[in-house]
Amino acid sequence: MEQYTDTFLGVDPGFHVTGYSILRRSGSSIHLLDIGYLQMKPTKTLSERVGEFYAFFTQHIAIHGINHIALETSFLGKNAQTFLKLGYLRGILYLLADQNQCELHEFPPSQVKMATTGFGGASKDQVARVMLKMFPKLSEVKAVARNDATDALAIGMCGIMNSKKHAAFGL
Amino acid sequence: MEQYTDTFLGVDPGFHVTGYSILRRSGSSIHLLDIGYLQMKPTKTLSERVGEFYAFFTQHIAIHGINHIALETSFLGKNAQTFLKLGYLRGILYLLADQNQCELHEFPPSQVKMATTGFGGASKDQVARVMLKMFPKLSEVKAVARNDATDALAIGMCGIMNSKKHAAFGL
Repeated sequence: MEQYTDTFLGVDPGFHVTGYSILRRSGSSIHLLDIGYLQMKPTKTLSERVGEFYAFFTQHIAIHGINHIALETSFLGKNAQTFLKLGYLRGILYLLADQNQCELHEFPPSQVKMATTGFGGASKDQVARVMLKMFPKLSEVKAVARNDATDALAIGMCGIMNSKKHAAFGL
Repeated sequence: MEQYTDTFLGVDPGFHVTGYSILRRSGSSIHLLDIGYLQMKPTKTLSERVGEFYAFFTQHIAIHGINHIALETSFLGKNAQTFLKLGYLRGILYLLADQNQCELHEFPPSQVKMATTGFGGASKDQVARVMLKMFPKLSEVKAVARNDATDALAIGMCGIMNSKKHAAFGL
């Protein structure tokens, strides 16, 4: 690992599919290290899936030396129990931030869209198109067929763009 | 540890105060092994408190060889963000269940009250009084001054009473 880097994990958690992206900023470059999604079997118990989610991200955080975790603020939708269960996965990300000395960043969905597409009300497809323009090699990545992955990339980019304001950014 | 025992952790989680009880059933006896509460400093970040909660219960599960975790189902109250954050702590309990091969039991609050006091609409004080009758030595325990602890004891007892129906209960 380089001596001074910021490595971001962007996550869009869900009990069925969780999109993630791993981005590293070193000096004036931004590298996309990994992008994909974790799909968990609905036949597993909730507890097993929470355990799988924890193990998956524990490993990714260690491999890439992640020191920032970015996620979207979640808002209550129609189903309160779905909202609560999403909280379980968010809780795991908070735990991982504590266990791995990661800085945690939370952004409202409109801020993520605004930062990446210039429009706070952008659709998931619009976000995906902008991400593909930003990282053209992405089109070769299978995972990108899922908006979960490009959404997570936008979240990670929002993290990078936001922390850029506060940190010294060598050119 | 005895060869065949069921050891229950009853938890009433909260970011400020989390009540807990540890109960063991061996043969036809129920032993109260521990009761208390975890108080987390509001000056700590959410992430640090999630980490503290995880470390605290990881240790208690290991010390007592806990193999059952009982908690109450939570319902959306007035504040959706409080409800979501409670989900973070619940998520940690789900993770601990997976990591320590514990069976997880969830009961609606009314079922816990019904099982312990015979009345689904009992107040916290009523629950506390019944618990003190059940375990008279409790009155010597300082933690019991808090209803969080007696609530957690009722949750643990409900777990014991509920699993009793399914398991062979030697007399």
